[in-house]
Amino acid sequence: MKVSQIVTRTSKTAPAEEVAKNAQLLIRAGYVYKNMAGVYSYTPLGFRVLENIKQIVREEMDAIGGQELIMSSLQRKETWEQTGRWDEKVVDIWFKSHLQDGTEVGFGWSHEEPIIEMLKQYISSYKDLPAYVYQFQTKLRNEVRAKSGILRGREFVMKDMYSCCVDQMQHDAFYQASMDAYMRVFERVGLGEDTFITYASGGAFTKFSHEFQTICDAGEDYIFVVPSTKQAFNAEIAPVKSAPVEQPNEVKPLEFLEDTETTGVDALVERLGIKLSSSTKTMLFSSDKGLIAAAVRSDYKLNEEKLKAVVDADWLQLASADEVRAATGAELGFAGLYNLPDSIKCYVDESCEGLVNFETGANETGKHAYNVNWERDVQKPDQFYDIKLAKTGDLYPETGEAYEVHKTAEVGNIFNFGTKKSQEMDFAFTNEAGERQFVYLGSYGIGVTRLMGVLAEKMADEHGLVWPVNVAPYMVYLVQIGNENEVVKSTENLCEILQSWGVSVLYDDTDKRPGEKFADADLLGIPHRVVVSTKTIEAGNYEYKARTSSDVEMVSMDRLKNILTQ
Amino acid sequence: MKVSQIVTRTSKTAPAEEVAKNAQLLIRAGYVYKNMAGVYSYTPLGFRVLENIKQIVREEMDAIGGQELIMSSLQRKETWEQTGRWDEKVVDIWFKSHLQDGTEVGFGWSHEEPIIEMLKQYISSYKDLPAYVYQFQTKLRNEVRAKSGILRGREFVMKDMYSCCVDQMQHDAFYQASMDAYMRVFERVGLGEDTFITYASGGAFTKFSHEFQTICDAGEDYIFVVPSTKQAFNAEIAPVKSAPVEQPNEVKPLEFLEDTETTGVDALVERLGIKLSSSTKTMLFSSDKGLIAAAVRSDYKLNEEKLKAVVDADWLQLASADEVRAATGAELGFAGLYNLPDSIKCYVDESCEGLVNFETGANETGKHAYNVNWERDVQKPDQFYDIKLAKTGDLYPETGEAYEVHKTAEVGNIFNFGTKKSQEMDFAFTNEAGERQFVYLGSYGIGVTRLMGVLAEKMADEHGLVWPVNVAPYMVYLVQIGNENEVVKSTENLCEILQSWGVSVLYDDTDKRPGEKFADADLLGIPHRVVVSTKTIEAGNYEYKARTSSDVEMVSMDRLKNILTQ
Repeated sequence: MKVSQIVTRTSKTAPAEEVAKNAQLLIRAGYVYKNMAGVYSYTPLGFRVLENIKQIVREEMDAIGGQELIMSSLQRKETWEQTGRWDEKVVDIWFKSHLQDGTEVGFGWSHEEPIIEMLKQYISSYKDLPAYVYQFQTKLRNEVRAKSGILRGREFVMKDMYSCCVDQMQHDAFYQASMDAYMRVFERVGLGEDTFITYASGGAFTKFSHEFQTICDAGEDYIFVVPSTKQAFNAEIAPVKSAPVEQPNEVKPLEFLEDTETTGVDALVERLGIKLSSSTKTMLFSSDKGLIAAAVRSDYKLNEEKLKAVVDADWLQLASADEVRAATGAELGFAGLYNLPDSIKCYVDESCEGLVNFETGANETGKHAYNVNWERDVQKPDQFYDIKLAKTGDLYPETGEAYEVHKTAEVGNIFNFGTKKSQEMDFAFTNEAGERQFVYLGSYGIGVTRLMGVLAEKMADEHGLVWPVNVAPYMVYLVQIGNENEVVKSTENLCEILQSWGVSVLYDDTDKRPGEKFADADLLGIPHRVVVSTKTIEAGNYEYKARTSSDVEMVSMDRLKNILTQ
Repeated sequence: MKVSQIVTRTSKTAPAEEVAKNAQLLIRAGYVYKNMAGVYSYTPLGFRVLENIKQIVREEMDAIGGQELIMSSLQRKETWEQTGRWDEKVVDIWFKSHLQDGTEVGFGWSHEEPIIEMLKQYISSYKDLPAYVYQFQTKLRNEVRAKSGILRGREFVMKDMYSCCVDQMQHDAFYQASMDAYMRVFERVGLGEDTFITYASGGAFTKFSHEFQTICDAGEDYIFVVPSTKQAFNAEIAPVKSAPVEQPNEVKPLEFLEDTETTGVDALVERLGIKLSSSTKTMLFSSDKGLIAAAVRSDYKLNEEKLKAVVDADWLQLASADEVRAATGAELGFAGLYNLPDSIKCYVDESCEGLVNFETGANETGKHAYNVNWERDVQKPDQFYDIKLAKTGDLYPETGEAYEVHKTAEVGNIFNFGTKKSQEMDFAFTNEAGERQFVYLGSYGIGVTRLMGVLAEKMADEHGLVWPVNVAPYMVYLVQIGNENEVVKSTENLCEILQSWGVSVLYDDTDKRPGEKFADADLLGIPHRVVVSTKTIEAGNYEYKARTSSDVEMVSMDRLKNILTQ
């Protein structure tokens, strides 16, 4: 392809309102066009990148038995009512409209329910299983904000796969195969080293699900990685031990502060002149196990999911002011470990265990206890728990190593539904014994446009985009310098030779200055740059530069072939 | 692919409410799944057919310089307001919704305006032209009715291409190239012989546009083909001469009927006991050329587009009752050629020229003239025109041949916008002389899912689908009869050999009865069927049947290779 013929052109600036680096670069280089916030079109250059990514994903999905199909975007209300997800209180990112006769329709933000509804038509016997289907679908999600470029848009391309299995064992085998296939995808697109299979919450169906998290400054997630094993957890579920905080040697006498004015723990520790990590926060929860209390060191946030697991509760929620008053006699904000009624079971985070001279509520309106010490003032619990949100500096409990913490973007996830969704949608089959059984379901997503955004964002340098070879729209940016007959002929000739090697070429035949052409080559992120000029013709060789290197070298045709086809 | 592994399965019945033959067959064979009226998903089998069609289209678009991209489905109101097409009175098939902040958004039913808006970012100089871009886009159209299966749905895939040229000459050259490319597409998918490049109305921009119409009983259009030249016109614009109708030899005396009760021409001719073709219809129109009259023989419908061209009017519309009364003195329904005031210019269709003893309104309320004859009763016009809608039996005026009339489906269209849309959207460039000029635009559509529907509908026989080889999901339906070791081994072996020839195979390894397998092979429409059984193994050959033939023959491996790879 000649640059003069390409529909797009490079630009020195991006739209002023575009804040995401990935979109800024992709717009400047002419890979995407912004239709509105969170909605982008993919130009011929961008389309090639997207197709390269899709082809890699497709090959890996096919390799594990996936069958590609394409679902509709328009969806029926009745399909989603079966699982309660038509309700906008449950799913708040629906785009909806209606047919001319008033019938409500939705636009596909997800395809789990519709695909199950469809598969019910085809699957009724164990002989019809397993079934693995996937699609590349344009999803429409009515996100409130859309400021992350193509990392999180209102319209984006997702590969979503669904597995239907007869039992847990068959499901587990495919789940593992998908996990491996996903890692091959991320390796092939050049993100293998920085992508972590990350434990995440499994929701209602299963203990864990898995996310594929790629280190990326523009990401919205944090992961906690165990350095010695590279095992990764997302922030919500990472099991952590707090790093030790130095404690005073001298145990001080218990004191109280009477103060109804100061609100909030930050103001309180300032008033007391103590560190945040010498303070504790106690919260009361109502749950299916009754009223309970939970305490963490004040420099942590309580993690309700962890607490729920520790309490073994089906549900819990912060107690109301009335409940707190009834249980402790004090107003909200004064619950604490001091004088907490014995009737209230209290779960204390392990971050509180080593505290000396700490602050806690005194369960009396306006009263805080400080210089509190275990045993002397408050009975030390038999057991401490991990019920906090992980933060940087925390340790992996099993080995005591400090976690590596990374800002990441979620590029994929795999999810085990068990038979819960099948039950909701009555998706069953007859087993070999003639009995009716529910299908084991899994779902497996890869954000295709997001992946492109992560590559744009993460690989870029100060000169522009840097595409990994497997996804680059073209392999070589061929620069013709000057328009002398001999130069034109020699460049065209080289272009043909490169293509005969199976190497795709973007041939800059424009009348721009050499410096501009080099800047374009960099901005566009094409892996290899080859220059032809009267100088190179005289020398009988070519000027070569890799996008990832600043070294320019003169190379022979043989050496060039070696570099480009190795 | 093994039939036992394919996600879908064949069915003897289609959903009761599905009336379209194409959808009935495609659903029964497991190619599509119906989500709701006019909305279908494409299963792995259907997806393969769709991709085969897309790939053929893609190759032909690339060959004429098209660059593939993909636009967003979500569209801005402001984009469409520039041409007035956001208005639902102008475009009545919008699906619209809104962002969480209330901003209205539309879902792409077309992409002309958005793509021009985008290209304005990239095109400003003659050096940026020409530009040819295309996409395969899922279009969403809120059709009132959707009963044609995948021939006309609320969600469908379209290839839309757009050309931007510096002038008419460059545009015309590309327009011609697209026309050729389109015909190559239709030839390659197996519709070449039955697809006609059809003259259609050019709308406001140009005299003609071109439709590609394929003979198809389920189509919504009619085309008129000149037998000697194969030139085709759609019903709206076909120039026609009426076939001669035998006229009475005896000229009767003029008579009048006084009747205010009988309304409608059919009742009137019945009352008079005359043929419809002995009656005329006269209508009055107001137009930018003043009030005019137009008359056709009553067995024809007046064609306003033709009339507009003949009158050379920018606009015309049926005159109101008040206008008719003011001009003729009679109520609506009694205008006619008899006693029509000289001040009203009357255009008479050539179908009326040879009439003897005909009926016409007498321009007096309640009064009809019959046994009217030219010259004696009504001045014969100096010129007769063709201002009627064509119908079966009509002649092509230039040669006098009777048209062949076909029911057709429009599978493609190409359209010349000239510079009108560029002007509306201010899409201009600087020419070599430094002057600002508007871009010449063309648009070029192929209905991809519709094409699949036409193939399904048109090629099918009483046993099921019949795919042309270039679009079939698999080339061979390989039937294993019996599950003896030697049969299984031999079939598997043949499957590998076929694949090594580059032939795709759907291998029926199920335990269905032979008759059921043969019925499936037919229903699925796979071009070639090959059977392996103990009988064929003994004979040292294979049983072969083409889908389009009822002959079963025993063939050697060599012969099979010949058939499948010729």
